[in-house]
Amino acid sequence: MGKDVADLIVGVLGGTGDQGRGLGYRLAAAGNPVIIGSRSAERAEATAAELGSGVRGMANADAARESDVVIVAVPWEGHRDLLASLAGPLAGKVVIDCVNPLGFDKRGCYPLPVQAGSAAEQAAEVLPDSRVVGAFHHVSAVVLLDPEVTTVDLDVMVLGEDREATDLVQALAGRIPGIRGVYAGRLRNCGQIEALTANLVSINRRYKAHAGLRVTDV
Amino acid sequence: MGKDVADLIVGVLGGTGDQGRGLGYRLAAAGNPVIIGSRSAERAEATAAELGSGVRGMANADAARESDVVIVAVPWEGHRDLLASLAGPLAGKVVIDCVNPLGFDKRGCYPLPVQAGSAAEQAAEVLPDSRVVGAFHHVSAVVLLDPEVTTVDLDVMVLGEDREATDLVQALAGRIPGIRGVYAGRLRNCGQIEALTANLVSINRRYKAHAGLRVTDV
Repeated sequence: MGKDVADLIVGVLGGTGDQGRGLGYRLAAAGNPVIIGSRSAERAEATAAELGSGVRGMANADAARESDVVIVAVPWEGHRDLLASLAGPLAGKVVIDCVNPLGFDKRGCYPLPVQAGSAAEQAAEVLPDSRVVGAFHHVSAVVLLDPEVTTVDLDVMVLGEDREATDLVQALAGRIPGIRGVYAGRLRNCGQIEALTANLVSINRRYKAHAGLRVTDV
Repeated sequence: MGKDVADLIVGVLGGTGDQGRGLGYRLAAAGNPVIIGSRSAERAEATAAELGSGVRGMANADAARESDVVIVAVPWEGHRDLLASLAGPLAGKVVIDCVNPLGFDKRGCYPLPVQAGSAAEQAAEVLPDSRVVGAFHHVSAVVLLDPEVTTVDLDVMVLGEDREATDLVQALAGRIPGIRGVYAGRLRNCGQIEALTANLVSINRRYKAHAGLRVTDV
């Protein structure tokens, strides 16, 4: 890619949701150019204006085209169709999937069954010309969006098949103060990382926390 | 149960394997009476003698009968049949399943599909009169068995349906120096905790580590 990680333009598809806004906010604060993508260019622009730090807003396809690296933060419902429609603009790029396919009922949160094995593997299926990496699953949007929080206390697990791509995403994660990117396996091991978010929801409920994970001995 | 957690007799089914030996060693060192169970009483006795600290060895059924709390550390293959055969002696007891259904191939480690959802849920299916808790999935046997390691640096995620049982297992985990037991959800969220061991294997391979997890903000 050639560019330094600090100069990479980061697009965030579904960037008007909590997770997307939080990641866009933190990466822009770290100095990366950020583009919020949304189905509606107007809503993307409104979110961008709200986030400040020079963040721009565009329709998803334009955000995909203009960015060097793209974070997928769209709702699980519609994930496959949206990505399939963007296979052209996303070709050749590193695509970071942070989607957690989860359901909620009166007993709490639980992982939804995913035919491809994981959201990240589904992304890889419909984006054969992109380098898909799974990451940023466990970061709390509440924490990311809280301007009082100056250090985010967790490790981001980074999964993928391509060493150059996972190294890049680890470095990008590490630009957010407090966060460390840790390589955590191939995409076939991403399903349990996504599903683990249901456990963090259970932990948060029991302990009134915004739990994250740290990997010890690394 | 009435007894203090320090006085609970802990049985370890499949206690001659690395994980079972490691947990037996640490809990005996913490002062709990420990019984190693095995298909063969002779092998159980040999392992018990090797572990010292007053650990006893018995056939699995006797170990189940004599113990207050039972850790299931048997191989995934045969897990269902062994537990079904012990439903009688395990009735009314807290049964801690730490089994990780994993496969290995030349690309590394991956989670096996489990019809019940998880080993812990399979245990609950065949032990309807026991209180099944999932825990101790991520502790490295190498670390547990290393007498040079005085503090084990990780949190044990504890999952179950019964608050009294998960509280007890959290307290039991906390008896091993360095370990903290953290409630991490219902049994339906245990599959990804078991599968996550495949990610720890990937992390260990990449970083030459014995990785564990800590939960932040708790």
